[in-house]
Parts: sequence; structure tokens; C-alpha cells
Amino acid sequence: MNSLPFPAPKVLAFDVFGTVVDWHSGIAREVQALRPLVDGNAFALAWRAGYQPAMRRVMSGELGWTLIDDLHRLILDGLLAPFGLDDLSEAELQHLNKAWHRLDPWPDVVQGLTRLKSRHMICTLSNGNIGLLADMAKHGGLPWDCILSAEVFRAYKPDPATYLGVAGVFGVAPSEVMLVAAHQDDLAAARACGLQTAYIERPAEFGADQPKDVSPCPANTRHARDFMALADQLGG
Amino acid sequence: MNSLPFPAPKVLAFDVFGTVVDWHSGIAREVQALRPLVDGNAFALAWRAGYQPAMRRVMSGELGWTLIDDLHRLILDGLLAPFGLDDLSEAELQHLNKAWHRLDPWPDVVQGLTRLKSRHMICTLSNGNIGLLADMAKHGGLPWDCILSAEVFRAYKPDPATYLGVAGVFGVAPSEVMLVAAHQDDLAAARACGLQTAYIERPAEFGADQPKDVSPCPANTRHARDFMALADQLGG
Repeated sequence: MNSLPFPAPKVLAFDVFGTVVDWHSGIAREVQALRPLVDGNAFALAWRAGYQPAMRRVMSGELGWTLIDDLHRLILDGLLAPFGLDDLSEAELQHLNKAWHRLDPWPDVVQGLTRLKSRHMICTLSNGNIGLLADMAKHGGLPWDCILSAEVFRAYKPDPATYLGVAGVFGVAPSEVMLVAAHQDDLAAARACGLQTAYIERPAEFGADQPKDVSPCPANTRHARDFMALADQLGG
Repeated sequence: MNSLPFPAPKVLAFDVFGTVVDWHSGIAREVQALRPLVDGNAFALAWRAGYQPAMRRVMSGELGWTLIDDLHRLILDGLLAPFGLDDLSEAELQHLNKAWHRLDPWPDVVQGLTRLKSRHMICTLSNGNIGLLADMAKHGGLPWDCILSAEVFRAYKPDPATYLGVAGVFGVAPSEVMLVAAHQDDLAAARACGLQTAYIERPAEFGADQPKDVSPCPANTRHARDFMALADQLGG
């Protein structure tokens, strides 16, 4: 971490999938609820792995602007045969595709966000669409001040329009916004736009059996185990 | 009102200025805090009266896309000489222009929204920009599930893109969205797009001394004195 002091950020913008909610166990659980014999772990990893390539197809212009709900469905349709899910009905597929709306937050999230909200504007900055993020917030009791999304800026992270867009929405300098994320690449892109950055360890993001590297990157403004630890650091 | 039953709306989208917050007394109070001799009532009415014409200049193409914060400033600048406010500093003007971010909710709003939120997705649908609406929500403790704004749709109400945009964001039919507003023209435009409509009486919107006509329009789905009465009607 850089040495302090930093000006207190006015706005905390949170990455969502992996940082706020546990997509791996949520997706694994939902597919197994439909078809108990499917390898939920492998299915969750495969679905998530299709996410970046699908967004690249949009940003390259190959696909027009597409909501994440529709990209999720596009990826899901390609997983049906490999995972033996060909017999799912259209209603089951629509239900499964909305599993991303029903992901549970990590255990520290609601209390941590509530503390952080007392001193900062807290918002999402996710590639997920607004409706998905609003459903998820209602499902998990996430106390956002505001839901910001790629859908607002018509660009996905790591496009600078997203990070700078948060500063624009609130009429503050980029340095007054802190991106909070469990992914170093997201944080690096935000930092390149002048934002402060906080890395959150989510060692079980890819499943408890596949711990990820959560070692600190010195370029980040903050490094915290979870949202409670971030609130401790920011004095909330 | 039309005769029941109607399907329960999934999403309640709220007009904000006048419906949720009391702009008249808030603006009058703030200008008088700066210059006690100004006629706060006349100033508030004049500032608000500039709003529709300013939006028309944008929608006609005369002005490019402009956030309401900037339209408010444009109108304010034209009121300085008539109201003897020429001596306000730039810092005072910026503070006054943000008075719209600090408007108080009507007394029934927080409890009414909290009740309605238990059964419905509740969101704003305002011509105010996202940052303004988020500041206002934080100031007044407004428990929105989601803040939607003209800024998201790049069109002001009564453009159909705004009303239909709410349905699109949540992936529901227009008839599953109810616009809640204290203005019959807003409700009529929403109804033309297939939304349900609820009229809320706000007789003191233009000041206690200038009561407005709050008589029911039979075309609305609901007519309620305030948000508590609407929650009673919707069973929240």
C-alpha cells in the first residue's frame, strides 16, 4: 500500500460479482437444485469463464450493446450440451439464468456496507445490468445509495468511461472515488483513471477448494480482508 | 378510478419533485438563509417555472443533453438580477444550486416507502440527475431499491423512452409498472405507454397559500392522499 495520508474518498464504488456476492457457490447450488448430478463447481466456473469473452464480443463491435442478462443466457446456451442440461425447459432456463439475480452476499457485506454508508456514498460499479443488481440488492438486503452499472455508461469495465463515469455522476474528482474490488485488473484500470483503490481478499471466490492468490499489490490505496476491515481502516 | 381488480404492480416508479419532496419550502428556505429579504415563495416558484422550458430547449435540440443540475444553474443565473441576488459569490451560487439535492421529503414518505418496498420494487423516475437523486436519498433517508433518472435513458419525461425504460430495466411488461406522481400530465403520459398510474395529492406543492387542485382523474388506477394511503390500498 502507498503510505498515508490519502484524502477520504467521498464515493465508494463496489465491484459486485466476487467482491460483494459469492457467485461460485450460488451458481453451483442453483444448477444442482435443478439437476443434482451436474458438477456444480465445474458448471459455475465454466459459466463465469464465458463472461469476459462475451463482453469482448460486444466491446469489439461484433455484438451490439447487450445486457449481462442476455450475455449470461448466450453463454448458458453453449453449456447445455457439455453439461448434459439439454432437457431443461425454457422456463427452467429462464429461472437458472436469473440465478445471478439471487446470489448471496459474503457474510461481512451487509454490516460492512452499513458502516461504510454512514460516512461515504456507496454505489455499485458492475458490468451487471441495473435490474439484476436491484434484484440482488433486494434479495440480499444490500443498502446501496445508488446502483451504477455498465448499463448507465453503455460500456463495460475496464473501459475508462465506467470509472470516470462514477466521478461524473457525483460531480467529484476521480481521486475522490475509491473502487473496491477483489480483482487486481479491475483496480489497475481504475487507478489508471485516477481513482483510489481498495483490494478485498475473497480467497474462496472460485470455491473453497480453489483458493486464489490474495497477496497485496503495493499500488492499491487500501488492502483489506473484508468490508468490516475496510470500514475499520476508513474509520466508518 | 377504474374498477378493480388490477394485477399488483411489480415496480413502483416515483416522480420525485413535488411527489416525494417539498421543493417549494426547501428552495424558499435556502434562498432566505442566504438573503433574508428575498421573497422566498416567489423565488421558488420562479426557479421551478423555468424547469419545463429549459428541458424543452434540450429536447428540441437547441441545447445538447444537459443534466438537471446544469439546467437549474442556467435558470438560476437568469433569476439573479430580478431577485437582487447579483452579489452572491460563485461559492454561494454553487451551494444554492445544490439546494435541490437537500430537499426534505413530505412527512409520510419514509414510512410509506418502507411499507411499499416490502411488496414492490421501488425506484425513482425523475428528470433529476442520478447524483442529485442519490444525495437527496441520503439526505432524507429515502429507501429506494434503485435510482432511475432521465440521465439513464437520455430523455426527459414525458418522453415514452423514460416510462418504457423502467419496464425494460426490470424486464417486465409496462402494465406491471405503476407510475406514482402528483402531476396528472406525467401520469397521462405514463398511461399512454401502458403503465398503471397512482395520483398522490400534494395540495401544498406550490406553498400552503397556493393550494392546487387535487381532484381525482378517473383514468388513474389509484388515487391516494399520500404514500401511507397508497400502501393501504396496495396492501403493503
